[in-house]
This record gives sequence, structure tokens and C-alpha cells, in this order.
Amino acid sequence: MSDLKRSWVESANAPGCEFPLNNLPYGVFSVGNARRCGVAIGDMILDVSALEVAGTLRPDPVQDVLQGASWNAFMSLGKSVWSAYRGGLVALLSKDAEVVTQRALHAHLLPAKDARLYMPFQVSGFTDFYASKHHATNVGTMFRGADNALPPNWLHMPIGYNGRASSVVISGTDVTRPHGQIMGEDGPHFAPSARFDFELEMGAVVGQASDGPLGVAEAFENIFGYVLLNDWSARDIQAWEYQPLGPFQGKATATTISPWIVTAEALEPFLCDTPEPEVPLMEHLQAPRPMLYDIALEVGLTPQGAQETAIARTNFKEVYYSSAQQLAHHTSSGCPMRIGDLLGSGTVSGPERENRGSMLELSWGGADPLKLDAGGVRSFLEDGDRVTLRGHARGDGFRIGFGACTGTLRGAQI
Amino acid sequence: MSDLKRSWVESANAPGCEFPLNNLPYGVFSVGNARRCGVAIGDMILDVSALEVAGTLRPDPVQDVLQGASWNAFMSLGKSVWSAYRGGLVALLSKDAEVVTQRALHAHLLPAKDARLYMPFQVSGFTDFYASKHHATNVGTMFRGADNALPPNWLHMPIGYNGRASSVVISGTDVTRPHGQIMGEDGPHFAPSARFDFELEMGAVVGQASDGPLGVAEAFENIFGYVLLNDWSARDIQAWEYQPLGPFQGKATATTISPWIVTAEALEPFLCDTPEPEVPLMEHLQAPRPMLYDIALEVGLTPQGAQETAIARTNFKEVYYSSAQQLAHHTSSGCPMRIGDLLGSGTVSGPERENRGSMLELSWGGADPLKLDAGGVRSFLEDGDRVTLRGHARGDGFRIGFGACTGTLRGAQI
Repeated sequence: MSDLKRSWVESANAPGCEFPLNNLPYGVFSVGNARRCGVAIGDMILDVSALEVAGTLRPDPVQDVLQGASWNAFMSLGKSVWSAYRGGLVALLSKDAEVVTQRALHAHLLPAKDARLYMPFQVSGFTDFYASKHHATNVGTMFRGADNALPPNWLHMPIGYNGRASSVVISGTDVTRPHGQIMGEDGPHFAPSARFDFELEMGAVVGQASDGPLGVAEAFENIFGYVLLNDWSARDIQAWEYQPLGPFQGKATATTISPWIVTAEALEPFLCDTPEPEVPLMEHLQAPRPMLYDIALEVGLTPQGAQETAIARTNFKEVYYSSAQQLAHHTSSGCPMRIGDLLGSGTVSGPERENRGSMLELSWGGADPLKLDAGGVRSFLEDGDRVTLRGHARGDGFRIGFGACTGTLRGAQI
Repeated sequence: MSDLKRSWVESANAPGCEFPLNNLPYGVFSVGNARRCGVAIGDMILDVSALEVAGTLRPDPVQDVLQGASWNAFMSLGKSVWSAYRGGLVALLSKDAEVVTQRALHAHLLPAKDARLYMPFQVSGFTDFYASKHHATNVGTMFRGADNALPPNWLHMPIGYNGRASSVVISGTDVTRPHGQIMGEDGPHFAPSARFDFELEMGAVVGQASDGPLGVAEAFENIFGYVLLNDWSARDIQAWEYQPLGPFQGKATATTISPWIVTAEALEPFLCDTPEPEVPLMEHLQAPRPMLYDIALEVGLTPQGAQETAIARTNFKEVYYSSAQQLAHHTSSGCPMRIGDLLGSGTVSGPERENRGSMLELSWGGADPLKLDAGGVRSFLEDGDRVTLRGHARGDGFRIGFGACTGTLRGAQI
């Protein structure tokens, strides 16, 4: 278990802080006008676009890569630069840094509470997987019956589908309840979704382009970092449209991500194995070493003007296929990957009711509505509901967080 | 029926020429070094990047939009600019142009035979539809039996799925036979696809961004132009993976497009109605006027070192839903669209065997192999086979073409 690394930014050493020196996640922010690349440390943000211009800390000696309000150009420099840059940040922000260094950085440290956050990277492609066995079994039971719950291919490959990169939004963005075609007793009709849902997922950010099949170990090296991800889902639209070519408009309204990319390097102490495969995986999907992470996940539901209810707790380590295995499968046909591709893990559900990562599962399709602390019940989301995902990897006396991943559901537009 | 517009570029007036003055499609080319935006006229390419710099013809008076080796920036200027610019090109290249104009343009007209062509636009997102009733019925019969051929939702909405923008390539790019998981008698195994196929489609290029539901008429206005599109498909990989979330790696190896964007304005004389809906369409999918096109399509198959066989002939007008209806449906959930989004029509098949737009249908899943003119038969594609799509809208004494959309299948890599 790894220990807290202490910083001269005192708030980073506080118990429960999401952004200790061990974390150093990458985001895009503004205080006032222009968007800049920033690194979260305690309750502050370090303006690393300014540090690049000043020459204090440059990812690349010649070209600027942090002036474009996205981390894509930085990612393109590759893993050795990712690691060296992180080492440079740790040196600058460590308790052991020279006082003169600390003084020089003060002007570039801004209070996080004054900052607005933006998408930390440009999403090139968005792919969503279906890699939690509990989730796939729950949904399959509801959609196709218990005997056909898990599709025959599920234990052999990480099932996934292409989503819509254009609908990925940053935490805090409102989501509008969509219209769509819904099957009713009198046939299909066009109406606002009545079964609008969230999905608790992790998202892996691909940091290197590739142009052919990747082995699992290579795929692991190409993943830059992780975000929390809520893949909003209109279950009624999805149920009517998804045969035979999969989810489309039921998943196209919005996908919300948390504002900070937590790097794979920061998460290294929390690596763990996937669950033991129930049937042997084919060679191209076998993981040579632990590539999944122990990250505690939770969901809060806050009705408009009321208190939050913690409605689900689970852990990323529940998923059957790691993001590295998903990426390897994604490239098996020769599919080119790009910097900024985002891979959703699929809804992370655990074995118990309280571990389920969607309303569909928590209320069992509406058959068993969820009680809220503020009174009332929920089968699916209601207008004004705010959904907040949180995630933490826990070290010895510290934790690494992602920042909240929130969105509020607004009523359908007429 | 519209007449040939005559150009002083004499080759554009020749019978059978794909690029008369009526066409003026947009591409990206190089002769020697840098990539430039070009317009095809007869057997020449007009270097419009040079015309922009020279001030001879500028899409925008202030900013440059044709210096980036893609038409995306031009598209962002909107429909009135698209139309005015096209008017300017017609004036410059018309038989009626002043001799001094013709002389000034000579330096910027380059023989097409000396040019290399590149992707004419940056693909933001790629969506593939399933909008030919003949194709859906054929494939459904083979995959699910005649009684369940057409899914219950099919007559109510254009079924589609998100594809992979990163795998869209320009005509002439070789395609490598993919590996993938394939179900066999002894269970699934990982092997080269043995049922690799082409799909004859049209692709609509979205030229305006949107951020909410579009009506069909608005959607029509947002489509900049069309290309031919071959959505290469590994049928055996697809068959094993596609339940429940749709095609993924079976469609991710490559999608080839023709090199020239033929503008919606050039195709206007060839507008036609979709087939009469068999059940009334919901209001948000009803077309207020003709929005489909009469474009003859054909496929040639050329085994390595042998002559070409014409294996299929059909027409874009066979599809049940126009690209405008597809785009309207695509936005119905609020899904944001971007400039450069590419919408595949789905395989265009007609009622007869010779009208079928894929090997899967032509050989009826291999049950009835196709005879080739050069001798031999084909159920699916063999290594070395070249597939060529061609498309033409026919006017009175002229035709509008897209340039060939070709790709050669290379053997699987070990």
C-alpha cells in the first residue's frame, strides 16, 4: 500500500483530500477568460500552460503542447514524456521543493473554487463496453429472461459498441430529457423518454494512436488515464430500437465525464486482477499481469431542492474485462485508434442490490422502486434530479479522487 | 431533365465524362508535395487553394478556408456560401467565361492523371444505416429466418448504428483481411475472417453542426454532399459478436469512400421521392418534398491479374429512408451533429439478384456462389480481389459521377 506524498500546498495533505501529491490529475480550466491546462493539487489548480510559457516546466523542449486547452497534444508525446513530466510536477510541488521554487509557483496556483472546468481532452471516438457480469446478467434477465440473460459470446470477448463522441460533455452540464420512438400498447409513438437512466462507469482515455491489432500489454501502455463516466440512457427508446444493430438514440443524448484525467501512473498502486475468467480467455485477451484497478465508486441522487441519497456503491474491480483487454479487443480487426479515444467500461454493478450501477437495475425495471432519504421513491429519473458519481482509490492515510461527475436532468423540450 | 452546361475545359463536355460543369465536386489532391483543395472538371483538377490565395475566388473575404487540405472549414461557412462559391466556379469555368479569365486559370488547372487524391474531409463521426428494405429483408432472412426477416421497428424508423470514424479511408487504400472471433463447430476461435464482404452504399456528408433535434427539412439543408461508400464487413465476426449491442469489430477494419464530394446542389436535378411508406411515418420523419436521388450504382469485382466482372447494379432511389430522414432521426434524442459527420445509407439492394449490394446477398450466404467472367466463382471475397463501386446521375446528354471507389483485399497478417 502506498503512502501519502506530502506537498507544500498544505490543503493537499489534508485527510480525505481528493487531490494529494500522489494524484496530480490533468484538466482544463479558466479563471476569467482563456482556457488553460491545469493540474489539481489540494484545493488549488496549478496553471501548467503558464509554466510551459515561462519555461519552468516544459513537456517538450521545442514545441508547445499545453496552449491548446486540451491534453491531446501532450498525450501525443508518449509514455516516457508522460512519466518525466509527472516527475517534474512532483518535484515542484513536493514538501522538499526549494523555497524559491515554491515562491515562483505561487502566482500560478489558483483557487479551484474560482475556476470553471472544461472537457480535459478532445474526444476522438467514444466506445462503450458491457463488461460487468452482474450488470449484463441483470439487464439480460430483464430484457430477455433469466435463461438468456448472458449472451453466448459474453464470456469470450468484451462486448462493446461505438457511441457518439459529439455527445460527451463535462461534469456540470445539464442534460435534457430526450424524445424518441417508444413502443406502447397501441404501437410505437414519439414522446419524451419515461425511463431515463444513468449508468455508473469508468472511462479509459487512449493516449497513443495505433494502426493495427494491439496485444493486451501494448494496449495497457497506450492508456493515458481514467475518468468517471455517466452514460445517460433512455431505456424505453433503447428497448424499441436496439434490435438488430444495437443502441443508438437511446444512448445519444449525453455522456458526462468527470473533469480531471487521473493518470494511469497515479493509479499504479491500486492495480488488481480481473475476476478469474469462468472460461479460459483466448490468447489475445489474456492479461499478463494485473491491469484493473481497485477504485471505490458511488452514486448520489439529489431531487431538486432536496437532500442527496446515496443510491449505489460498487468498485471498478468488479468488471470482468479491464480497459486494456477492451482496447486490445477493439483493435483486433485492425481498427485504428486515435489519441483521445474514450472507452467506457460499461456499467459497473456488483453482486448486491446496493451495488447496482443504474436505475434500471436498482428499481428492477420499475418493479421495486428505490426509496429516497428525502422521502418519495424513484423507478427512473425525474426532471430536476441531479446524479453525482464519485470515485476514490484508497491508499494508506490518503485517497485519490476524480472530482465529482454530476449532471442535472432538465424536462423535455416541447 | 437538366442539360449539359458547357465548359471551356473541353474534356468536361465529352460524352460520358464524370465531371462536367454540372458536377464540380470537391476533393483534396497533391501533384508533387503539399495537399490542396481541388475541384474536378473534365480530366483536370482546378487548384482552388491557389485561387483562394490569389484572390481569384475566395469563399470568405477575410479568412482562408481552403488551405487546410480538407473541406471542413469551407463547409462551416454555411449553405449560402456553398451556393455562391459554386456559382463563382461555374462562372469561371463556363464556355462563356472571358478569355482573360481562362488564361488566368490555366496555371491552376492540373491533369487529374498526375494527382494523388486524399480524404476530402475530416470524418468527425461515422454512422451507418440499414435503410434498404431489400437488403434488410435479405440479411434478416439469412440471419433470423424469413418469418423474422424485417425487425418490427424497421418500417417506423431508419435503423442505424455508430461506426468508427478512424477507419474511414480514401479510395485506393488497400484493406487487410482482419482477424476476429468466429464461432465454429467446436466453439469460438480467433482466426482470419473467412466471410469478408463489401457493402455498396452512399454516404451523406453533414456540412453544418447542430445541437438538438432537426426536422427533416432542416436536416436536408445541412447535408453538404454525397460520396460512394463501401462498408467492408467481416460477416463471420459480425454474426458472433452482434448480439445484443450490434456490429463492432466486424465493421471496424475499413470503410472506403470515393475521392470527390458531389454537392447536394449538383445533384438537385436528380431528386426523387422515397418509395411510398408501407405504414405511415411519424411526423418527425415525414419528408415534405423529394429528398432522395436517382443515382445508378454498380459494383465491379476484379480478381488479382484478371478482368473485372460487373456483379451488381442498383440505384440509390431504392432506399426506404433518405439521408435527410436518417439525419433527422439521428438528432431526435438531441444528439449533437458535427461538420464532417458521415452517414452511410446502408447497403443499397434492389428487388432482383443482380441488384444486391453485398456478396452475402449475391451468393446467398455462400449457398449460391457467383460466377465470374474471368472464370471461377465467389461466395465471399478472396485475397487480391479488387472491389470497385461506381455511381452516376444521368442528365440529358451528360452524367454526374463520383469517381471510382476502389479497394483491394490483402491477405491477413500473421
